[in-house]
Amino acid sequence: MKIKTVLFLSFLCIGSVFGQTTIEKWKIFEVKLNGPTNGNPFTDIRLQGKFIQNNDTVTVSGFYDGAGIYKIRFMPQKEGKWSYITASNSKKLDKKKGNFLCTAALKGNFGPVVVADTFHFAYANGKPYYPFGTTCYAWVHQGDSLAEVTLKTLSKGYFNKMRMCIFPKDYDWNKKEPFLYPFEGKPLTDWDYTKFNPAYFRNIEKRIAQLDSLGIEADLIVFHPYDRWGFKKMDRKTDDRYINYIIARFAAYKNVWWSMANEYDFMAEKKKEDWDHYIQLFAANDPYNHLRSIHHGSVMYDHTNPLLTHASIQNEDTYRAKELRNKFKKPIIYDECRYEGNINWSWGNLTAEEMVNKFWRGVTNGGYVGHGETYLTENPVQFGYKSDAEMWWSKGGVLRGKSQERIKFLKTIIESAPGYLTPVVNYEYWMPYSAVAYKDEYFLNYYNMDQPRSQIVNLPKNAQYKVEIINGWDMTITPVEGEYSGKTLIQLPQKPFTAIRCTKEK
Amino acid sequence: MKIKTVLFLSFLCIGSVFGQTTIEKWKIFEVKLNGPTNGNPFTDIRLQGKFIQNNDTVTVSGFYDGAGIYKIRFMPQKEGKWSYITASNSKKLDKKKGNFLCTAALKGNFGPVVVADTFHFAYANGKPYYPFGTTCYAWVHQGDSLAEVTLKTLSKGYFNKMRMCIFPKDYDWNKKEPFLYPFEGKPLTDWDYTKFNPAYFRNIEKRIAQLDSLGIEADLIVFHPYDRWGFKKMDRKTDDRYINYIIARFAAYKNVWWSMANEYDFMAEKKKEDWDHYIQLFAANDPYNHLRSIHHGSVMYDHTNPLLTHASIQNEDTYRAKELRNKFKKPIIYDECRYEGNINWSWGNLTAEEMVNKFWRGVTNGGYVGHGETYLTENPVQFGYKSDAEMWWSKGGVLRGKSQERIKFLKTIIESAPGYLTPVVNYEYWMPYSAVAYKDEYFLNYYNMDQPRSQIVNLPKNAQYKVEIINGWDMTITPVEGEYSGKTLIQLPQKPFTAIRCTKEK
Repeated sequence: MKIKTVLFLSFLCIGSVFGQTTIEKWKIFEVKLNGPTNGNPFTDIRLQGKFIQNNDTVTVSGFYDGAGIYKIRFMPQKEGKWSYITASNSKKLDKKKGNFLCTAALKGNFGPVVVADTFHFAYANGKPYYPFGTTCYAWVHQGDSLAEVTLKTLSKGYFNKMRMCIFPKDYDWNKKEPFLYPFEGKPLTDWDYTKFNPAYFRNIEKRIAQLDSLGIEADLIVFHPYDRWGFKKMDRKTDDRYINYIIARFAAYKNVWWSMANEYDFMAEKKKEDWDHYIQLFAANDPYNHLRSIHHGSVMYDHTNPLLTHASIQNEDTYRAKELRNKFKKPIIYDECRYEGNINWSWGNLTAEEMVNKFWRGVTNGGYVGHGETYLTENPVQFGYKSDAEMWWSKGGVLRGKSQERIKFLKTIIESAPGYLTPVVNYEYWMPYSAVAYKDEYFLNYYNMDQPRSQIVNLPKNAQYKVEIINGWDMTITPVEGEYSGKTLIQLPQKPFTAIRCTKEK
Repeated sequence: MKIKTVLFLSFLCIGSVFGQTTIEKWKIFEVKLNGPTNGNPFTDIRLQGKFIQNNDTVTVSGFYDGAGIYKIRFMPQKEGKWSYITASNSKKLDKKKGNFLCTAALKGNFGPVVVADTFHFAYANGKPYYPFGTTCYAWVHQGDSLAEVTLKTLSKGYFNKMRMCIFPKDYDWNKKEPFLYPFEGKPLTDWDYTKFNPAYFRNIEKRIAQLDSLGIEADLIVFHPYDRWGFKKMDRKTDDRYINYIIARFAAYKNVWWSMANEYDFMAEKKKEDWDHYIQLFAANDPYNHLRSIHHGSVMYDHTNPLLTHASIQNEDTYRAKELRNKFKKPIIYDECRYEGNINWSWGNLTAEEMVNKFWRGVTNGGYVGHGETYLTENPVQFGYKSDAEMWWSKGGVLRGKSQERIKFLKTIIESAPGYLTPVVNYEYWMPYSAVAYKDEYFLNYYNMDQPRSQIVNLPKNAQYKVEIINGWDMTITPVEGEYSGKTLIQLPQKPFTAIRCTKEK
């Protein structure tokens, strides 16, 4: 009988078995060292850890966490015994050794998400991952009490991805100062860009880990244009140091994704070469090869860049996922298709109905879609946006809309499919609508906001199918009596949000 | 005191004043002659009328109407005395002379519609004409009793244009034979293409005149692909004879428009040169230069062709009218943006809400939009479309939907604007939405199916404006208290179909 003691050290999962330090696969093993405090440890000290298992060596960068503490974080991707040795230009940090045992992943730990089957995603353990994301750009900068409310909302399981900015946000209704700043110095713009503020990044790490515990991927936005502090116009050297620092700190979190930018094309300070450079830097320096994307405002990035793992799209025509798949040969995520809400800006006043429709149309055309919510409930202020207000899209908190429950319903439908869904293009089995299928086993056809009284399903003749009528708004699944094969006319309820699901009988 | 006796000779409006035949401007003066019945009068006899007023001569072709009767129809476009003389290769028809007095147009007679202000239309008398059309492709081929129902529906004033085919229609739910055929011979395909059936064309003329009396333009579709009788694959010579015959018969009706085709690109029998040729033929031989267009299925025609007066579009993205205006520099009519209905085909199962939205988006982006309705109410038949069924889009009859009342509401709004509306592109006065304006006098901004709680209107500062909130679905116009100038935040009801109208105070 094995005796196992697991110590939960904040977000780390280091334990020990008979004196041997153990770490669960895809969790974080952290080496913590005392080192120099003189000079500028952020720029003066170089620190690396080499993690070795048989012929495998993974080299990861360490980082300075303030108060003389240096850390190296490692996410083991293989079970078994690992040893490590540090390398540093500081003697106090150099040639430190140790070892640990990487144990099997426990329930709920599937590893980081990777691209699968060209247009889709899976966790490292092979389990399919279907992104149903949301957006709270600045939720980590609002302090603990609101973040706790956000986490409670997220715990309801509507979403499994969160788009969030590393830097604070300056925008309409976002005029409050963040409670922490990323660099030493004084707001608004008096920063020592050579010195990070570790507390700022520890706060983000805490949130990343909390998202992970809820099964939510953290789609971290590295740069964005909505800034009054100068973070959008740092020089190349500072940008690189910042990127390397966040890789050193965050990359060991299995649920991290790198999004180079929110609306890269709205950042006049950066050129195409800069973005290509950042993408390359992440590809070169992230030892785990986390997913990489870049999100646009009006001008779509060339997502054929082989270092981009998927296409992150801003556009409301989510049914065009099919075209974009053909163009980019990658997973297509409409991370921004406008938000459910009531603000004056057109990007933030979709009805819940339209939000849900955009999810369905995206998913039934071979893509994925992201959510956001912008309900302004405060008393009207002249022109509204000069004030500060709590809206999910930026600060998190509570959801006031009606789409999230329907998105969750769609998520359960997609997750229960027998495999990755591919758009039906030849319409052999379907009328020309939004239709996806898994081999000849499963067909899902969505009729948008239309109201057909019937549809023909032309099912394969060599098998029997169960037919169900789904309503994406009412969240109902109604079986159609009987078993079907070949060409059949299915009567429909003549209302928006209707879908037909056909599943091959075993 | 003038004594005037007006005789209504069926659809003609010929009268007499002190023995002088009179004809109202833009109505039809008809010369009726007895001529040869031997041989083939349709091909053997040439007949023309020259109508002369001072230095003006208008030459029009006559036609054989059967039973030895030949007719020449003329629509005078100028008041005053006209004389005429015929020319024919038949002595019995040659050099017949006469004269008449063209009197002023009476109430409700505005003349034919022409292009005005590049992107719009007006009647010949200068009154603006804003097309709000519908579609009953084959209503004239259904016999009198259903046509009377159709006319009763149309008399409710929802629409002022009708898209209708000259040839009968073969399609799903259109399997009944027409009650008349255009040529002598026997169905399905045994026709003497050199001999027209005058009764067929008289029936269409009756319908054209009835539409005119309801203020409805007859957008006549010359060719279309949905045919089982062979009319879609006649040879060039037959096509030309047919075109000249309909010009001779129909062109004197002021409310006639020529649409070369419904879905020209679905007619494999015709080539690009054919279509260019037909367009040229109408331009050359129609003495009144009635509006000319060509409608597509998937591949848009090159509407820059200078002989096309406007662009007839099939596409559901009516908000793109703005782009198409820039491309074609002509009026843009989305004659087909899908239909309100419940059939299995995706082009015919829009909700009333979406139909109304498409009208509003088209009109507030500088275009015009057409209606159609396809509610199938019969008991379901296997695959539905092999049967015959009465649906407005094809046969006319009654309307079962909810969009027509809202379309009429929008029509009254557009007709009450002080002038032609132009898309607002610089957003000086508006947020970036669907917005049109007339100079600085009038602004109409539609917020689609979105639900903004407020919008900023940035009105000119040198005037005061009345502001109204319109709901295109509820058909409500709610004045906002006060007068406005410059930048103002207008509170809105947070629901779809909202529009703001701002009108300059005199």
